[in-house]
Amino acid sequence: MLGRLYPSQDCSAARTLELVGERWSLLILRDALFRRYTRFSEFQRSLGIATNVLAARLESFVAAGIFELAEEAGQRAYRPTEKGLELKGVIIALTHWGDKWIGPGPAVFRHHGCGGGIEQVMRCGSCGEPIPNRKVEARHRDG
Amino acid sequence: MLGRLYPSQDCSAARTLELVGERWSLLILRDALFRRYTRFSEFQRSLGIATNVLAARLESFVAAGIFELAEEAGQRAYRPTEKGLELKGVIIALTHWGDKWIGPGPAVFRHHGCGGGIEQVMRCGSCGEPIPNRKVEARHRDG
Repeated sequence: MLGRLYPSQDCSAARTLELVGERWSLLILRDALFRRYTRFSEFQRSLGIATNVLAARLESFVAAGIFELAEEAGQRAYRPTEKGLELKGVIIALTHWGDKWIGPGPAVFRHHGCGGGIEQVMRCGSCGEPIPNRKVEARHRDG
Repeated sequence: MLGRLYPSQDCSAARTLELVGERWSLLILRDALFRRYTRFSEFQRSLGIATNVLAARLESFVAAGIFELAEEAGQRAYRPTEKGLELKGVIIALTHWGDKWIGPGPAVFRHHGCGGGIEQVMRCGSCGEPIPNRKVEARHRDG
């Protein structure tokens, strides 16, 4: 595990960052979730990072239940679990923001099937309206 | 600026992480976007981090156009720009994942107005269908 990076913070975003917020972590997930890489050598070639750093990140993802170990053609493979797959939304949010505010990157997200572009939107679970950023507020769960 | 953490990666998620992916960065944004903190002292009290680290993060956000400098009652204030406000979606994605896979945290996101819970969903821009994670794929922009 990555340990407690933010022990003073009682916050789900902080807890998530403790699992996926170290350097290279989200790019390993990007490669696993969207390029379907599973092998150590594939991640290493894609990212060019030190093998000890890559090994530590992969181990921590297995320990956190984000990847599960498998064997493919006699080699160790790292496969995203459902818990891991659900981080797609984080990577898409980062990518769409970068596309808009830094400049269009090489990847686009498509609907497997019809091929349409993926939009990530917020909507109200009560009234069903689409919600712009300015209309989203945080409250205490018990408040 | 935070510099190039991922110079080998031609990727909008990597570019975004270069701006907001250093330790404490996203928690500073959480405080600015959802608690409406603007003062150095407010961030410092909330996060308890070293003042030189906090000063460096705030400066980098101003340099990146994520915060803008203002004056409030004679004190320096850091206010999120539209570019900064649009990072709400990243923080909500991290929070919802942590709530589900680690355990419910203290904060919930509400629709300012009706008070309903915020859902973050993916939908197809072409056929309009809601898209589960397994049906989202990445392709090359020109491909």
